[in-house]
Amino acid sequence: MLANTAYLWAMRMEDTICALSTAPGQGAIALIRVSGPQTKAVINKVFRPRSARHELEKARAYQNLVGYLLRDKEIIDEVVVAWYQGPQSYTGEDVAEIACHGSPYVTEQILRSLLAAGARLADPGEYTLRAYINGKMDLSQAEAVADLIAAENQAAHKVAMQQLRGGISAEIRQLREELINFVALIELELDFSEEDVEFADRAALESLLARIEEVLRHLLDSYSTGNAIKNGVPVAIVGAPNAGKSTLLNALLNEEKAIVTEVAGTTRDAIEDEITLDGIRYRFIDTAGIRETEDQVEKIGIQRTFEKIALSDVVLFLFDAYAARLPERQALLAEEIALLRQHTEGKTLLILGNKTDRLEAEGLAPWQPPGEAVVWVSAQPKKGLEALREKLQEKYRWQDLAAQQSIVTSARHVNALEQSLADIQKVKEGLAAGLSGDLLSLDIREALQHLGSIIGEVDVDKDILGAIFGKFCIGK
Amino acid sequence: MLANTAYLWAMRMEDTICALSTAPGQGAIALIRVSGPQTKAVINKVFRPRSARHELEKARAYQNLVGYLLRDKEIIDEVVVAWYQGPQSYTGEDVAEIACHGSPYVTEQILRSLLAAGARLADPGEYTLRAYINGKMDLSQAEAVADLIAAENQAAHKVAMQQLRGGISAEIRQLREELINFVALIELELDFSEEDVEFADRAALESLLARIEEVLRHLLDSYSTGNAIKNGVPVAIVGAPNAGKSTLLNALLNEEKAIVTEVAGTTRDAIEDEITLDGIRYRFIDTAGIRETEDQVEKIGIQRTFEKIALSDVVLFLFDAYAARLPERQALLAEEIALLRQHTEGKTLLILGNKTDRLEAEGLAPWQPPGEAVVWVSAQPKKGLEALREKLQEKYRWQDLAAQQSIVTSARHVNALEQSLADIQKVKEGLAAGLSGDLLSLDIREALQHLGSIIGEVDVDKDILGAIFGKFCIGK
Repeated sequence: MLANTAYLWAMRMEDTICALSTAPGQGAIALIRVSGPQTKAVINKVFRPRSARHELEKARAYQNLVGYLLRDKEIIDEVVVAWYQGPQSYTGEDVAEIACHGSPYVTEQILRSLLAAGARLADPGEYTLRAYINGKMDLSQAEAVADLIAAENQAAHKVAMQQLRGGISAEIRQLREELINFVALIELELDFSEEDVEFADRAALESLLARIEEVLRHLLDSYSTGNAIKNGVPVAIVGAPNAGKSTLLNALLNEEKAIVTEVAGTTRDAIEDEITLDGIRYRFIDTAGIRETEDQVEKIGIQRTFEKIALSDVVLFLFDAYAARLPERQALLAEEIALLRQHTEGKTLLILGNKTDRLEAEGLAPWQPPGEAVVWVSAQPKKGLEALREKLQEKYRWQDLAAQQSIVTSARHVNALEQSLADIQKVKEGLAAGLSGDLLSLDIREALQHLGSIIGEVDVDKDILGAIFGKFCIGK
Repeated sequence: MLANTAYLWAMRMEDTICALSTAPGQGAIALIRVSGPQTKAVINKVFRPRSARHELEKARAYQNLVGYLLRDKEIIDEVVVAWYQGPQSYTGEDVAEIACHGSPYVTEQILRSLLAAGARLADPGEYTLRAYINGKMDLSQAEAVADLIAAENQAAHKVAMQQLRGGISAEIRQLREELINFVALIELELDFSEEDVEFADRAALESLLARIEEVLRHLLDSYSTGNAIKNGVPVAIVGAPNAGKSTLLNALLNEEKAIVTEVAGTTRDAIEDEITLDGIRYRFIDTAGIRETEDQVEKIGIQRTFEKIALSDVVLFLFDAYAARLPERQALLAEEIALLRQHTEGKTLLILGNKTDRLEAEGLAPWQPPGEAVVWVSAQPKKGLEALREKLQEKYRWQDLAAQQSIVTSARHVNALEQSLADIQKVKEGLAAGLSGDLLSLDIREALQHLGSIIGEVDVDKDILGAIFGKFCIGK
């Protein structure tokens, strides 16, 4: 939170806002949230307490008031109003939460009544934006709110909760504070420049910079996991049509249905080509083969396969182990694998030999592509799938990482971390080159700015705030 | 509420139930409701208060507690728990409402944690069923809860609110009480049968029966309006394809969009052939013509038209007024209208002359079907539509009715009211025939039973309860 940012929003902060805060549609209960300086006045205009005990004027903090919600003097609904006196509220302002019957007609009428009473509709994410501006949470925590709501599995949920509870913020705030102490000392030296004193211990600064660099690198390294957690892992499946790609895919797609909330109709239609293993979502992308060809149409197909491979993190190459008992087939497969190796640098390439059951039935040993480890699978009957799942997960074991440190999931954070890292390296170089205090101080201030932008402790550009909060749903 | 009904549910009433009570899907906030004797114990297992101030043990009634919701010792979410000590709660039992982040993943985890802590998932409508069994509301009010949630327009909302606030219950309870007094007096006579006394004033009973009959008839009469309010009014449009049916329909369908909640995505896809006038939904049903024909295929079409007419409350017959300037056309139209009259007894038949603008352009007077009032319309440019809307609404002006009495919207209530009416008439006849007190008393008791079944003041069959509450959503 910074005065300057707050200033940009000041005009709007004077508004009292309202919005439906529960999911749209019919339910037993819906919640409408009102926040802002005029909350009390707005509620008093639309709420008639059931008895004197439920009057807003007499409400204790965190109390629920029972009564009637009116529009044009007509009773719209019997409601419960939860009263949160600012700053002890989500936004830090006076907040009232109206629990009404979960009918879209009722919520529409209540919102209209609130608008007539002087509130305006909230923008997407405006409650959380206000919470940030009022210092109830830092920017990285505010971003975690949206991540938490969108989290669809254990990993995404855990990382969002960690961030919401201040995980990454705490690390960065700590490093920033130590760095601020140094820059203060260095700037103090400037006041005594004629005396040529050094208040800031250069060796200690060097060691702090090394520590910061290490933390930044770890955070940056965590992004490959964080990104997998947040966006899933794209997996390309390469192989001839008769290699058994779709049978394998069907065998892998274990039906992990939500058993509890599905009765309420919340289960989304299953996305066919996704599986969640240990909290990470793997998205399978089917591709054509990659065999060298002169056929023009086939060439386009192969081109497309390589494009899809380029977008993937993991590539599964599936071959028919039974067909591969023939030497001429083996030569072709070896060529294909070699070609694939060229196109999968930095990615995980898994070679899968399918249909091992047919080989076994004939008592044949499978052909082993030279120099390659093969995961032997049989889609029908299911064999070797557990080993395949293990292999898939190897790179994305997030639990150990999550236990040690914060995991970065946001591209915006990566960008700020990279800039901070570059700044820190510049300071290090300057220090090694015996740069003067005033220049050193400038470089450190750059780093402080970039580090601070993650948690919003420096002035954050209004466009960036707009981009962050614009992605929220209305009512949050 | 009756002991006997309660007994049937007693086993299940010992359970502590939980369910998502807000609409399914993503939102800023979701509410999970816990109700039952073990609510406190269940919450204590899964909730860790933020501070001592937020401990459940110290909670005042209607207080909100802030803290963390745990599953297997892991924090699932930061939540607010509203505590309602029974009987001051919706169900009359101890109730806790957990407000969490509106993520389907989070709500699923919280529900699983509650299940592990000893709660079970609520059945549809089980909270409201418990409220009924615990005497927090009568059966007609419980039914109004579902109506209120489903209400999509002003009329349906108003009638549901009236019923929820005890409208129909109050009338019936009052009449029942008076009748109970009489039956008590008559039964008292039986104890003194040898003395041939009459405690119950026969003339006063006769006048009470007349009053009850009047109220029952009014309530039954209101069902045509109540049904229109709840289920809409089916309107069949009959006319040759070139009469301009679809243009007229498009002209009528004024776009009444929800302006407030649509931003949250709650606006349902517009149902193309519906308009809402003054709070009543009119559903238009297109039909083929009804001209006499020898063609076999056409005959089937005409048969279908009559079937659709039979299901409608209002029939619009649309003819091309310009084409009707020709005498041979007029003869055919007169025949068609006469045929339609035969098939629309008890229904509203509106004759619409379309394309009056073309007649006007040529300075021609329109042909008037003999003995019929015609609503002259022009769909393109729009003319006469206001008059048509007025005509449509004539039969369904609910506001005046609603101001005077309760409006019956439930087929179950109609059934019980009709049976009550038959019982009352039987009592009247018995009274006129000088029937003995013991037989009179039996008939009155029948009437009391049927009247009582509306508000659930007598033992209501478990199947009926199942049918009523089974229609609720889960969480209500």
